[in-house]
Amino acid sequence: MMDVTAAPRTLSLERYYDVVMLLESYGRLLDEDRLEDWIELFDTQAHYEILSRENVEQGLLLALMLCDNKDMIYDRIFSLREANIYNLHYDCHILGLPRAAPLETGEIQVSCAYSLYQSTPEGVSRLFSVGRYSMLLVESDGRLKIRKQVVTVDTSAILTLLATPI
Amino acid sequence: MMDVTAAPRTLSLERYYDVVMLLESYGRLLDEDRLEDWIELFDTQAHYEILSRENVEQGLLLALMLCDNKDMIYDRIFSLREANIYNLHYDCHILGLPRAAPLETGEIQVSCAYSLYQSTPEGVSRLFSVGRYSMLLVESDGRLKIRKQVVTVDTSAILTLLATPI
Amino acid sequence: MMDVTAAPRTLSLERYYDVVMLLESYGRLLDEDRLEDWIELFDTQAHYEILSRENVEQGLLLALMLCDNKDMIYDRIFSLREANIYNLHYDCHILGLPRAAPLETGEIQVSCAYSLYQSTPEGVSRLFSVGRYSMLLVESDGRLKIRKQVVTVDTSAILTLLATPI
Repeated sequence: MMDVTAAPRTLSLERYYDVVMLLESYGRLLDEDRLEDWIELFDTQAHYEILSRENVEQGLLLALMLCDNKDMIYDRIFSLREANIYNLHYDCHILGLPRAAPLETGEIQVSCAYSLYQSTPEGVSRLFSVGRYSMLLVESDGRLKIRKQVVTVDTSAILTLLATPI
Repeated sequence: MMDVTAAPRTLSLERYYDVVMLLESYGRLLDEDRLEDWIELFDTQAHYEILSRENVEQGLLLALMLCDNKDMIYDRIFSLREANIYNLHYDCHILGLPRAAPLETGEIQVSCAYSLYQSTPEGVSRLFSVGRYSMLLVESDGRLKIRKQVVTVDTSAILTLLATPI
Repeated sequence: MMDVTAAPRTLSLERYYDVVMLLESYGRLLDEDRLEDWIELFDTQAHYEILSRENVEQGLLLALMLCDNKDMIYDRIFSLREANIYNLHYDCHILGLPRAAPLETGEIQVSCAYSLYQSTPEGVSRLFSVGRYSMLLVESDGRLKIRKQVVTVDTSAILTLLATPI
């Protein structure tokens, strides 16, 4: 864990803006069901993982969903598109204020609380999930990409309903 | 729709800050029931519209509320103040991270997910609406104003209860 | 109240970034139950107060919780750690877009809508509180600290359950 009590401003404003834009795209592309575009926010060495907060607090790093390379993420999206039957819904991600800190490796560590609402086609909305994104970003071809995304969900009780990415 | 997958940083940081300040004012003035001040965030050629997401996805651009000039917005607020009886409530808008992109016309296109909570005077809160703002901003007398605001609501089931603007 | 209709950009971008980082730390440290670190975001002359919106609107400034110096905040945290029995839960703060304006005194006035979710260890989440932060920040040893934090809660009905800070 990064120590963030001191909260030094170590990333340039311009770079922080890039991080905000990446997070904004992340939430919006999921909301618009543009999953194929969403994947392209990830680096070629992508890692996507969902953990429950209860497990994390107990030191159990058992993933509820784990894709440890980009092909696995493609496969998951493909199976959502082609094979799975899941409840149709509209997503709405509201992301909180993000934190971003540069690592000595040149990567950028990001932490951001999220809330995710789902609505039925009939227009009934409910809170679906809250939790936190922990991301590792890299620069690739002059722009930021997600190398690693770990979603820690507080709302683990609904994970059996999990279909589309958080 | 703007293509936002590539997410280029095309607006200056200073201009993005202005957009954030405008959105912040938008939410807060509604929360504080300062509707007459909220109207002044709009340009003289103001357009305000609410669409349900279900309709948008089906290509039906039938507005659930439509004010296509500033006088119509004034009228609506005036009738809220003078004539309508509606449930008293406190609004609380939580806006997500916004996106802003300049158009060739000089206007700025803004997209921002919102969540709106309403609370009774007795202090019981509930989720009232989630969805997305799509705004067109113009510079007027050296400051940004809203020329067009289209609210796409995921939570269309509650629109019969709609009184104050979202 | 500051007049924010005009919404002039009066704080430098760098200073605004500092404010965003402070707010981000505020929410995250509470979410991570790092209450002892959270206290250190406050100045030595700290003031922390919770008011219900209903009371504020009626001109009743009767605090639902009041710590008018830092020792009182320490005491409250200490009693939470040592003595109180309260329902275990995970917090998740989602903060909206903040506003920050410099005062002639050199202090910075901040306004920010918040939403707070609580989840049980079993992973059931619910909206716990929405409202607004009104903060007064000062610079101390080269960094921003909170001199005064007034939380106005729209969700006053749940305040009997209030244990950890909002």
